[in-house]
Amino acid sequence: MNNRRNFIKTAALGVIGSSLIPEIVAAAMPETSKAAGKIRIPDNATILFQGDSITDAHRDRKQTSENNAMGLGTGYALGAASTLLLDNPSKNLKIYNRGISGNKVYQLADRWEEDCLAIKPDILSILVGVNDYWHTLSGKYKGTIKTYRDDFKALLDRTKNRLPDVKLIIGEPYAVNGVKAVTDAWFPAFYEYQKAARELAESFGAVFIPYQKVYDTAQKMAPGSYWTPDGVHPSVAGARLMAEAWLKAVKG
Amino acid sequence: MNNRRNFIKTAALGVIGSSLIPEIVAAAMPETSKAAGKIRIPDNATILFQGDSITDAHRDRKQTSENNAMGLGTGYALGAASTLLLDNPSKNLKIYNRGISGNKVYQLADRWEEDCLAIKPDILSILVGVNDYWHTLSGKYKGTIKTYRDDFKALLDRTKNRLPDVKLIIGEPYAVNGVKAVTDAWFPAFYEYQKAARELAESFGAVFIPYQKVYDTAQKMAPGSYWTPDGVHPSVAGARLMAEAWLKAVKG
Repeated sequence: MNNRRNFIKTAALGVIGSSLIPEIVAAAMPETSKAAGKIRIPDNATILFQGDSITDAHRDRKQTSENNAMGLGTGYALGAASTLLLDNPSKNLKIYNRGISGNKVYQLADRWEEDCLAIKPDILSILVGVNDYWHTLSGKYKGTIKTYRDDFKALLDRTKNRLPDVKLIIGEPYAVNGVKAVTDAWFPAFYEYQKAARELAESFGAVFIPYQKVYDTAQKMAPGSYWTPDGVHPSVAGARLMAEAWLKAVKG
Repeated sequence: MNNRRNFIKTAALGVIGSSLIPEIVAAAMPETSKAAGKIRIPDNATILFQGDSITDAHRDRKQTSENNAMGLGTGYALGAASTLLLDNPSKNLKIYNRGISGNKVYQLADRWEEDCLAIKPDILSILVGVNDYWHTLSGKYKGTIKTYRDDFKALLDRTKNRLPDVKLIIGEPYAVNGVKAVTDAWFPAFYEYQKAARELAESFGAVFIPYQKVYDTAQKMAPGSYWTPDGVHPSVAGARLMAEAWLKAVKG
């Protein structure tokens, strides 16, 4: 409700328009707007996107080669990859997407050897957590916030142990309240998952992408359902918004 | 060969890097870099991408609704749509892709009623022509440059007759010589198809996107195969390059 009021208020002020997008992303991400907070992409870097359906985005799982459009899906990973590859034509980047719809942290761990460690990423981007909470609401999944935090920490320890030089990007799990699947019942419990992701990013020296703040800020320009039709999965606009936020975390 | 020499020369000069991209697109498209040469996107606009495999880009043809990521494919149409939707959140845009792999002009005409006129686009973007030439090389297709020009003109006449207010964007068919499928045997015959597309764009008041020049200029930054692995179909980087060129043709 607050979001809708803010949206209407902002609309009335006449500040809706394309020129706001860079400012909105920058406002949501002050730390990564400074060059010092960014990850530098070296020549010949391997970049891996990992996560759940938001990362998966209907990718063709048979297309496992690098820089493959169908293998990168139709979401923020393809969006970020396409701009990285356009902007860095001399760097020989290799970009992969291994997100799988429905995944929680323990399911990433189950396939980590093949779907992360064997790929030996120089830059590893992980977005996971919304299912770790969401799936508890049906009663079918019994994991708790402690499960999420402990499993995620163990996954990051294992990754750093095997790939000590990997640069980490951790995305904040997000949910847009008031849109379809997401209701007041999610909060404040879901905030704990976001806090855990942020704290793990800090303790592992990862760049943190505050997607919740990005979505919250975007709602000054259009209602939440414009950016995510069900409160969780991004629209085409939402996916490009996430790609722009992700791209701010790196410098070419 | 010339392309490779230029690339190596440019690389030696140390000018490879991300900062060149906007200048390269602008240099390739001076006319559309001026606001006067651009198409304004009105509120509630319906935008349709039409063409062959380059537009199709493995879209899911069952996903026919507007602004659908899978329905937009993984190519330049999704790339352009995602930025349009991000930059114009208040405009209620409806964007469709109806490109079909392998199509020549007469095959667009065969499905034009359903796949264009019924959609009633306010802005119609067409990229077609490479197959009209390419498929003649195997001897299986007997169309000539006259077939292409006449069929394309008839298609545009029919479109303007039914949708008098439609704004047209016509993309230049392109081919990158020296990359896999594309050899010296294509030229100068293929230049005639490019000339026909440009002349039709002029006579119908369409914005013309000079994709050949965009690809030629991009080869100052990386070899042709980086932008299109077979000389015709874009890589992920090539598709984003085309999206950036397309976006220069419109203003939000």
